[in-house]
Amino acid sequence: LPPEPGLFDGIYARGAAAAALSETAWLQAMLDFEAALARAHAAEGTLPASEAERIAAVCRAERYDLLALSREGARHAQPVVGLIEAMRTQLAPGKDRVHLGATSQDTVDTAAMLVARRALVPLLADADAAARAAAALAREHAETPETARTLLQQALPTSFGLVAAGWAHGIASARARLLTVAETELAVQFGGPVGSAGLALSTRIASELGLADPALPWHTIRVRPASLAGALGVLAGVLGKIARDVTLLAQSEVGEVHEGGGPGAGASSAMAHKRNPAVAVSVLACTKRVPGLVATMLATMEQEHQRAAGAWQAEWGTLTELLGLTASAAAWVRELLASLQVDPGRMTSNLERLTAAHVREAADPGRHLGDAEAMIERALTEYGL
Amino acid sequence: LPPEPGLFDGIYARGAAAAALSETAWLQAMLDFEAALARAHAAEGTLPASEAERIAAVCRAERYDLLALSREGARHAQPVVGLIEAMRTQLAPGKDRVHLGATSQDTVDTAAMLVARRALVPLLADADAAARAAAALAREHAETPETARTLLQQALPTSFGLVAAGWAHGIASARARLLTVAETELAVQFGGPVGSAGLALSTRIASELGLADPALPWHTIRVRPASLAGALGVLAGVLGKIARDVTLLAQSEVGEVHEGGGPGAGASSAMAHKRNPAVAVSVLACTKRVPGLVATMLATMEQEHQRAAGAWQAEWGTLTELLGLTASAAAWVRELLASLQVDPGRMTSNLERLTAAHVREAADPGRHLGDAEAMIERALTEYGL
Amino acid sequence: LPPEPGLFDGIYARGAAAAALSETAWLQAMLDFEAALARAHAAEGTLPASEAERIAAVCRAERYDLLALSREGARHAQPVVGLIEAMRTQLAPGKDRVHLGATSQDTVDTAAMLVARRALVPLLADADAAARAAAALAREHAETPETARTLLQQALPTSFGLVAAGWAHGIASARARLLTVAETELAVQFGGPVGSAGLALSTRIASELGLADPALPWHTIRVRPASLAGALGVLAGVLGKIARDVTLLAQSEVGEVHEGGGPGAGASSAMAHKRNPAVAVSVLACTKRVPGLVATMLATMEQEHQRAAGAWQAEWGTLTELLGLTASAAAWVRELLASLQVDPGRMTSNLERLTAAHVREAADPGRHLGDAEAMIERALTEYGL
Amino acid sequence: LPPEPGLFDGIYARGAAAAALSETAWLQAMLDFEAALARAHAAEGTLPASEAERIAAVCRAERYDLLALSREGARHAQPVVGLIEAMRTQLAPGKDRVHLGATSQDTVDTAAMLVARRALVPLLADADAAARAAAALAREHAETPETARTLLQQALPTSFGLVAAGWAHGIASARARLLTVAETELAVQFGGPVGSAGLALSTRIASELGLADPALPWHTIRVRPASLAGALGVLAGVLGKIARDVTLLAQSEVGEVHEGGGPGAGASSAMAHKRNPAVAVSVLACTKRVPGLVATMLATMEQEHQRAAGAWQAEWGTLTELLGLTASAAAWVRELLASLQVDPGRMTSNLERLTAAHVREAADPGRHLGDAEAMIERALTEYGL
Repeated sequence: LPPEPGLFDGIYARGAAAAALSETAWLQAMLDFEAALARAHAAEGTLPASEAERIAAVCRAERYDLLALSREGARHAQPVVGLIEAMRTQLAPGKDRVHLGATSQDTVDTAAMLVARRALVPLLADADAAARAAAALAREHAETPETARTLLQQALPTSFGLVAAGWAHGIASARARLLTVAETELAVQFGGPVGSAGLALSTRIASELGLADPALPWHTIRVRPASLAGALGVLAGVLGKIARDVTLLAQSEVGEVHEGGGPGAGASSAMAHKRNPAVAVSVLACTKRVPGLVATMLATMEQEHQRAAGAWQAEWGTLTELLGLTASAAAWVRELLASLQVDPGRMTSNLERLTAAHVREAADPGRHLGDAEAMIERALTEYGL
Repeated sequence: LPPEPGLFDGIYARGAAAAALSETAWLQAMLDFEAALARAHAAEGTLPASEAERIAAVCRAERYDLLALSREGARHAQPVVGLIEAMRTQLAPGKDRVHLGATSQDTVDTAAMLVARRALVPLLADADAAARAAAALAREHAETPETARTLLQQALPTSFGLVAAGWAHGIASARARLLTVAETELAVQFGGPVGSAGLALSTRIASELGLADPALPWHTIRVRPASLAGALGVLAGVLGKIARDVTLLAQSEVGEVHEGGGPGAGASSAMAHKRNPAVAVSVLACTKRVPGLVATMLATMEQEHQRAAGAWQAEWGTLTELLGLTASAAAWVRELLASLQVDPGRMTSNLERLTAAHVREAADPGRHLGDAEAMIERALTEYGL
Repeated sequence: LPPEPGLFDGIYARGAAAAALSETAWLQAMLDFEAALARAHAAEGTLPASEAERIAAVCRAERYDLLALSREGARHAQPVVGLIEAMRTQLAPGKDRVHLGATSQDTVDTAAMLVARRALVPLLADADAAARAAAALAREHAETPETARTLLQQALPTSFGLVAAGWAHGIASARARLLTVAETELAVQFGGPVGSAGLALSTRIASELGLADPALPWHTIRVRPASLAGALGVLAGVLGKIARDVTLLAQSEVGEVHEGGGPGAGASSAMAHKRNPAVAVSVLACTKRVPGLVATMLATMEQEHQRAAGAWQAEWGTLTELLGLTASAAAWVRELLASLQVDPGRMTSNLERLTAAHVREAADPGRHLGDAEAMIERALTEYGL
Repeated sequence: LPPEPGLFDGIYARGAAAAALSETAWLQAMLDFEAALARAHAAEGTLPASEAERIAAVCRAERYDLLALSREGARHAQPVVGLIEAMRTQLAPGKDRVHLGATSQDTVDTAAMLVARRALVPLLADADAAARAAAALAREHAETPETARTLLQQALPTSFGLVAAGWAHGIASARARLLTVAETELAVQFGGPVGSAGLALSTRIASELGLADPALPWHTIRVRPASLAGALGVLAGVLGKIARDVTLLAQSEVGEVHEGGGPGAGASSAMAHKRNPAVAVSVLACTKRVPGLVATMLATMEQEHQRAAGAWQAEWGTLTELLGLTASAAAWVRELLASLQVDPGRMTSNLERLTAAHVREAADPGRHLGDAEAMIERALTEYGL
C-alpha cells in the first residue's frame, strides 16, 4: 500500500507528539539504540572507537526503506532482524560487529522508551499549558456564581472559578504522576539473547540515551510500559472529564460556556444557528479510545519466560496509539481552555431559575460558596499553577 | 507529516483487507455514498438525472487531497464538511445539490458500513481457507494419536485430528456468526439532520450500495457496529486460541508441530538452532489487541440524543483497527495451517512418556479416543468443511 | 466470611435474574448436569435406572454446604472435585458411578449454560417489557414536537415519538440478537477427560436439560460463551444509551422528561427541590461496568490445548457479573420507561427557543418531521412491538 | 435473596483482604466517616462534643441491617440516604446533626478510600512475602543452569536464579508503586453538596481517619481511584506473568518446577498421574479478570459536573473486585513461591537437549550466564529483598 495521510488524524493526532510517534521516529529510535550500543562497546574496549563511529554514521533513518523493513518484519514477527541486515549491507567490512551482544527485543524496547520520552515532551507541555489555562479561568472567575450540578440536576450555588480550579488541579495532578513515570520508568533495555548481558554496557547505553539504567533487564517483566500506560490512562480520563463538562455547559439550554474557535470552527453546514463544541468532541474522540488500550497493555503483561510469544508484539501498536491519543487530547484541551468563552450572565440567569424553595440560596450565592478564592489558591498552589 | 509505510504493518496488516481499510478506501466509501444519494434523488425525481451523474462523476477518491480533508476535519470534528466543500469546488454550478437532505453522519456511517463490507470479503475468505486447512489436518490425522493436555499437563490420549477438528469447527462457527452479521447488520444510514429524512431515499441508497435498508436511522442506536465488533472479537478469539496451541505444540520440549514457512522464516539471527513460531506469534500480536477495541466499541454505544458528542467520533479509528487486526490474524492463520508441519512420531513418543500408572492407555491410545473419525466428520459437516 | 447481603446490590442486582445467578443457582445447575448425566447413562444402558435415580435424588442444592465446597474448590482451582466427593459421601454404595465419563469442565460449563439460560428468562422479559414501554411512548407522542439535539446542541425539530421509537427499536433489535444467542449458543458440554467422550450421551444430556447438542465439545473453543457475552454487551449498550438520554432530557435546564417513581424516589436529602434521575443513574451504574467484562470474556478465549490453565477459570465470575449487570439494567429500564413522565409543554417551549434564524422551522415543526408516524410504525413493526 | 458463601470465592477471594472488602467492611467504613465528621465538628466547635460522641457511638456496623440499606439504596442510586435515616432513627434527639455539612458522595468516597487502605494492608504484605520468596529462590538457585526460552523455544542457558530474581524484582517494583499510591492517593473526600465545604473540617477528618487531606474535593476528578486502579493492574500483571511461567515450567514435558502443595492438592480425580498447577491456575483466574476492571475505572473518569450520573456509581463494585482479585492473586503467589519445588536435574537435562549446534554452550552454561549472582544481588537490593 502506498502511504497515505490519515483521514481522521486531524482529530486523533493533534499537536506535536504525532511527529514523535511516526514510523520514521520509531525507526530512528531503533537506530539510536544501535549507535549507543556501538559506542558503549567502544567505551568498554570491546569495539574499536572508529568502528563504533562508522556504525553510528549509518544510524540515520533516512538511509533505510521503511516498506522493505516492514515486509521483512513480517517474516520474523519483529523488524530488527531486517534492520540489522540492512545496516550490515551498508557497512560491509564491519558487518559482524553490529548489534553486538544485543537481542532484537533490546532494540525494540529501548526504542519504545525513546519514542515515549520524545512524545511525552510535547504531551507534558500541552498538559501543562492546559492546566495553566484552567488556572487562569479559575482565578478570573473565582467569584463568578454558577449553579453546581449533581446527577445533572441543578444543586446549590458554586463558583465557576472553583469548577475550573478542579479542572486545573485534575490535569496538574495527573500530569505530575505521568511526569514521575517519565522520569523513572523509561529505562534502557539491554539483556542480550537470554537476559543476562553485561551490566556495564547497559549503564553506558542508558547514559548515552538519557534513559534510566534498570537493575535488571525487563524483557518479560512489563512494569515499566504498563505503568506508563496507566499514567496515560489517568491523564486521558481527566481530559475527557473536562471535555464532557464543556459539552454540557455549552448545551443550547445551558449556554454558560462556548468554544472560542475562530469564525467557522464548529459550524454546522446544514444549521447555521448551531455552534458545535467541535474541540471538546475531538478531545472525547481521543479519550474514549484510551481505556481499552490500557487494558490491552495490562493484559499483555502475562509474558512467557524470557521473551513473549505474542503479548510483547501486541504492545507496539497499542503503546503508540495510547501515547498518540492522549497527546492529541492534551493538545486539544490546551486549545479548548485557552480560548474558552465564559458567559457569567448566563450563569447568573441559570442560577436564578433554581426553584422557589431555594430562592434564598439563589439570591445569596456567596453563602454556599465558602471561601472559594482560598480553596482555589490552595488547589492551584499544590502544583505551582 | 508525510505519509509513511507502517513499520509494524507487516505483522499487524497481513492480507488483502488492509487495502480495503486504507484512508483512500474510507474516502472512496464516503464518495460512494454521495454518488448513491444523488442517484437516489434522481430516481425520486428530486434531482435531474444529469445533475446526479455530474455529481457521481466527481465521486472518485483520486480527485481529492486526503491531507487537506484531514486538516479541515480537525475544524469540525468530522471530515464531511470539508469533503462537501471540496466536491462543490469541483462542481461549481451544481454546488447546492450535493449531499442533498443528508447529514454528515449519514455519509460517515454509510461509508463505515461499506468499508466493513469490503474488508470482510478477504477476511471471510481467509477465515474460510483457514477452516478448510484445519479440516484437512483433521481428516489427515484423524487417527494420529496425541496426548491431550489439560492445565498444561499431559492427560489421556486423543488424536491430533480431533484437535484440528476443534480448530476447524471453531473458525467455521465464528466465521458463520460473522457472516450473518455481514449479511444483516451492514446497513445504510440515512436520516438527515435530525434522523427523520425520507424512507424512500434510504431504500434507494441501500439498493444502490448493496447494503441493508434499516427500519429507522441508527445514528445513536449503535446495535449494528457493536454487533459487528462483537462478532469480530469472537473470531479473533478463536484465531488466538489456535495460535496459542501452535506455539505450545511447537515448544522445543514438545515439538509436535512446526511452522512450515520457507527457509529463513522464523530464524533467529543469534541462535541458528531456534525455529521461532513467527506466524503464530504474529497472529497473537493481532488478536491480543482486539478485546480492548471491542470494549471501546461497546462503551461508546452510550451516545447522546440524535448525534453523539465524542462517542461516535471515537468509533472510526477503533472499528478500522478491529477489522484490520482481525483480518490480519485470519490471513496469518490461513498461512499457518496451510503449511503446518505435523510430527506424528513426536506425538507418539510424547504419549509414551505418560507415567507408568497410565501405561495401558498409552499403549492403547485408541481406547480413549472414542470414535474420533465420526466425531470429526460430524463437526466438519456442520459448517460444510 | 459469613455471607452478607450486597450493600450496593439494590442497584447492581435489580430484577428477578439475580436469584437465577445466585451461588445456590450455580450449585443446582451443576447438580442438574450430574443428574442428567446419570439418566443419560441409564438410557444408554450403561447405568441401572435405579442407580441413576438414586444419584438424581441427591442432586438438590440444599443438601450441600456451599462454604465447604468453596474451600475445597480452592484446592483444585475448581469446585467439582469437592462436589463429586460430597455426592459420593451421600451415596456410599453407588459412589463409583457418579460423574461417569465426565470431566469437571463438563459439569461447570454445562452449569454455566443452564445458569445463563435461566437468568436470560427474566432478562429477556424485562427487555421486552422495556421495548414495549418505549413503543407505547413512541405511539403516544408520535406527533409531539421536540427539538433534536446533535453534539448536545439544539438542531431541527423532531418528535419525541420518533426518539422513543429509536429506543424501542434499539432494545428490541438487541434483544432479538440476544434471543438468537440464547436459542442457539447455549449448549451442553460433554467431552470427558480429553474431549472425546461419546456423542450419544451428549445428545441425551442436551435433551434432558433443554440445551443445544453441540457437534463437538467446546472445552477450549469458547465461541459460545463469548458470543453470549457480546450479545449481552450490545444490549447493555442500548440500555445505557436510553438512560443517558433520560438523564440529559431530565436536566433542570431541559426538563422534558422526569422519572415517575413514587414519592421520595430520587429525592435528595439535602436539597428538596432536586428530582434526581435515580433510575437512569442505576441503569448506567450497571451498563458502564459491562464493556470491560466483555473484553475479559474475549481475552480469555485464548485457551490452551484441551483445558485452559486460568483463562477458563476467569470466566465464571465474569459471566455471572455480565449476566447480572445486564439483567439489572434491563429491569431498571423497564421501570424507567413504564413510568416516564413526558412534558410536551416543555418540549414545545424549548423548541421555541431555537434561534431567530430558525424561526420558520420552530413555528412549523412538522415540516422537518417527515412522516414521523409512518416511520415509527415501520420501526416498531419490525420486531412486533 | 439470602446471603450465600461464594462458590468460586475459594479461588477468587484468597487471603485476608477479602474480609476487609466485605459488605460489612464497606458499611463500617461509611460509619467511620460519619463518626469522624461528627468529631471534626466538635473540634471545630460546630457540634457539642457530647453529641459527637453520641453519634460516634452508633457508628458500628452491627447495629444496621445490610439488606434494608441495600433496598433503600435502590431508591436513591446510593446507600447513604438510607444509612443517615437509620442513624437518625437510633439517635432520635440528635437527628438533625448527623452527616452535618456532608453530601452522600463524601461518605461513599471516603469509605472507598478506607476500604482500599484496609484491604491494601494484607495485599501489600502478601506481595512482599511473595517477593521475598522469589528472592530466596533467586539466591538459592543463582548458579542453577536452566535454558532460557524465547518465543517458547529453548534459547541459550541462563540460571533459574536469574529467572526468579526477575520475578522478585517485578513483584517488588510493582508493589513499591502501589505502596506509593497507598500512601499518597488515599484521601478523605469532604466537599459538601456542591464541593465547597470547609477545608478545616476536611483536614480534621483526614487526620482522624489517617487519610491524606486533599487540596480540593475530588468528587468528579477521579485521579485518585484511577491511579489506584492502575497500580493494582500493574501488580496483577506481574503476578500473572509469574503464574504463567510456573504453568509452563510445570508442563509434563518440561517439569522443571512443581507446585509444593500438600497431598491431594491439584490432584485430578480422573487421572492420578496428573499434578495440576492448581495454585498458578488460581492466580491466573484472578489476574485475567483485572485489565477489564481497570478499563472500567478509567472509562468512568468521564464524570459530569459536580456529581456523576452513573460513572461514579459504577466504580463501587468495580473497585471492590479489583482490590479483591489482585489481593487474591497476591495471596496465591505468596503460597506458590513459598512452596515451589525446583528440579535442577530436570533443568540440566532439558538444557542438554539443546541441539547439536549449541553443544558448546550447553556444555558450558556458565559462559552465557555473565555474572548471574551479581545481577541477582543488584536486582534484589534495589527493593531491599
